[in-house]
Amino acid sequence: MKLAVIPGDGIGVEVTAEALKVLDALVPGVEKTEYDLGARRYLRNGETLTDEDIASLKEHDVILLGAIGDPRSVPAGVLERGMLLPLRFALDHHVNLRPSKLYPGSATPLKEPGEIDFVVVREGTEGLYTGNGGAIRVGTPHEMGTETSVNTRYGVERVVRDAFARATSRRGKLTLVHKTNVLVNAGGLWQRTVDEVAPEFPEVEVDYCHIDAATIYMVTDPSRFDVIVTDNLFGDIITDLAAAVTGGIGTAASGNIDASGTNPSMFEPVHGSAPDIAGQGKADPTAAILSVALLLRHVGKDAEADRVEAAVEADLASRGDTEIVTAEVGDRIVATVSA
Amino acid sequence: MKLAVIPGDGIGVEVTAEALKVLDALVPGVEKTEYDLGARRYLRNGETLTDEDIASLKEHDVILLGAIGDPRSVPAGVLERGMLLPLRFALDHHVNLRPSKLYPGSATPLKEPGEIDFVVVREGTEGLYTGNGGAIRVGTPHEMGTETSVNTRYGVERVVRDAFARATSRRGKLTLVHKTNVLVNAGGLWQRTVDEVAPEFPEVEVDYCHIDAATIYMVTDPSRFDVIVTDNLFGDIITDLAAAVTGGIGTAASGNIDASGTNPSMFEPVHGSAPDIAGQGKADPTAAILSVALLLRHVGKDAEADRVEAAVEADLASRGDTEIVTAEVGDRIVATVSA
Ligand SMILES: CC(C)[C@H](C(=O)O)[C@@H](O)C(=O)O
Ligand SMILES: CC(C)[C@H](C(=O)O)[C@@H](O)C(=O)O
Repeated sequence: MKLAVIPGDGIGVEVTAEALKVLDALVPGVEKTEYDLGARRYLRNGETLTDEDIASLKEHDVILLGAIGDPRSVPAGVLERGMLLPLRFALDHHVNLRPSKLYPGSATPLKEPGEIDFVVVREGTEGLYTGNGGAIRVGTPHEMGTETSVNTRYGVERVVRDAFARATSRRGKLTLVHKTNVLVNAGGLWQRTVDEVAPEFPEVEVDYCHIDAATIYMVTDPSRFDVIVTDNLFGDIITDLAAAVTGGIGTAASGNIDASGTNPSMFEPVHGSAPDIAGQGKADPTAAILSVALLLRHVGKDAEADRVEAAVEADLASRGDTEIVTAEVGDRIVATVSA
Repeated sequence: MKLAVIPGDGIGVEVTAEALKVLDALVPGVEKTEYDLGARRYLRNGETLTDEDIASLKEHDVILLGAIGDPRSVPAGVLERGMLLPLRFALDHHVNLRPSKLYPGSATPLKEPGEIDFVVVREGTEGLYTGNGGAIRVGTPHEMGTETSVNTRYGVERVVRDAFARATSRRGKLTLVHKTNVLVNAGGLWQRTVDEVAPEFPEVEVDYCHIDAATIYMVTDPSRFDVIVTDNLFGDIITDLAAAVTGGIGTAASGNIDASGTNPSMFEPVHGSAPDIAGQGKADPTAAILSVALLLRHVGKDAEADRVEAAVEADLASRGDTEIVTAEVGDRIVATVSA
């Protein structure tokens, strides 16, 4: 396995180190190339993501990313629109996979969370993330700015199929989340695609809810969800909320997947670089370690993925109120998976 | 006061009756005109909102709306895009005001909610709600659908000013919610407008958070919010979540306000027509009654508005586990405000 590693900025570097410890313990001899993409390189030479970076990344089987960004020194949007999103687009990461599971011991803000265990299939290469917008008369009283959500049948159908397939191997329930009553063009396309693919998966029960109602269910009845399929922006919003209700973004992992297998898929924690706690060795590497589990499952190493998830589950259950020491969490998981 | 009443569909009719009881108890002699807009009229003659309706509504000082829609018989989008949204646009309801308050006794799903008391100023006439989208090759493998978010300095500035003014008379904190790191055109316009208006309100502390992060704070630290200002779609999403964390949409009221005073403003519960429980007399009219409080405050009757809110607060606190009987809730509020 040829692995590209992008530790990134802030706690990204710290949690990636732990994630790699766990990977090495399970799969010896992974060939790794490290990339210094992120705020550090941008501040050094103004580069975000070059064509050479992309070509070189493509020579790997998978990518592990820590976290990108440093809001203190890089303006909002520069690395997101210059690196993170171009990466997703260049590598055709159309399936943005974000599982949410409430592990025993996780600190959920909900009084009665019930059993939470679902995955969100967020479309990753279309919608409002395509940079299709513009502005005129900027800075004047007559300024006008637009953002256009772009949706194609091709782009929607491939993630809808992926979501149906995942529902089949889970509890057999698929929920489309959109805002079809207002966004009739995009919403109509999504709804029709789901309706037309559904007969191929007769064992999957299909449900729909508006994004606004979905946020209500997320805090009142999250157990109702099994697989959620949704567009890029709604997926961004609902997965952060999902991470919050399952105990915080400290444990939320994600995969940016090219389901066709043409390009390397990329695995990363949902959290950011958290400059406020960086360098103190107290970031929780659990989300990065669970991203390794997703990575392992993606390359067909299900048994190894199961071991990582079981180790994380045991670790979370036994933590109690003890403070997190980044390296110790990694060591404990390594000890468990190696036992 | 000339009041237009649109009871609408389902429980809209039931809760509006209670809201009017309360209004009549406080302000005798209100001149009312009832409009049969909604699913019933649409199913009868195919009409949603005519030019005559709009002209006639404009002759009133304020509008009270129950709830619109019947998902069993009217396709999604027809009444939303044919009546509700055209009403907001025709009457220039740019300030969509949605207060969230956790009353003692309300059933919040949060373990440690803290004190929740904020208002969302949602822009109501721009963004992704303008119907600026289209589709080609519909129903074919080459279908493409777009939705365009339209944002103008004029449209943004007037709600930003309104939000700052509200913050001044509250706890002095304003949070802009957007997604500036991805939606740079719209987000840049919003951010710059807030930055440029801020010096006029030096006593207001200004904060920013991305919509995805805002959903996290909404369940982990909702007390941090005082006034939130945001665009039409983000406002739609965050206010449903806000309603959920403060005990459900049974108590969430809203105002669709033309802050210039040119057109009548409209007050309505955030909840829908709930056909599943319609006609059973068990819908909670609290949100409709609190909408009357917003209406009263809007027309300068602050003392009366205070009395409604105090009565609702007392009623919620004393409810316990008793089942809701729509008319009894209205009667109790009337008794308290008349005492
Ligand atoms: C950083 C940002 C561009 C990104 C997104 O909006 O997709 C992040 O919020 C995420 O969810 O991965
Ligand atoms: C019914 C729908 C069009 C509406 C909206 O999206 O604005 C509703 O969700 C609301 O919040 O008032």
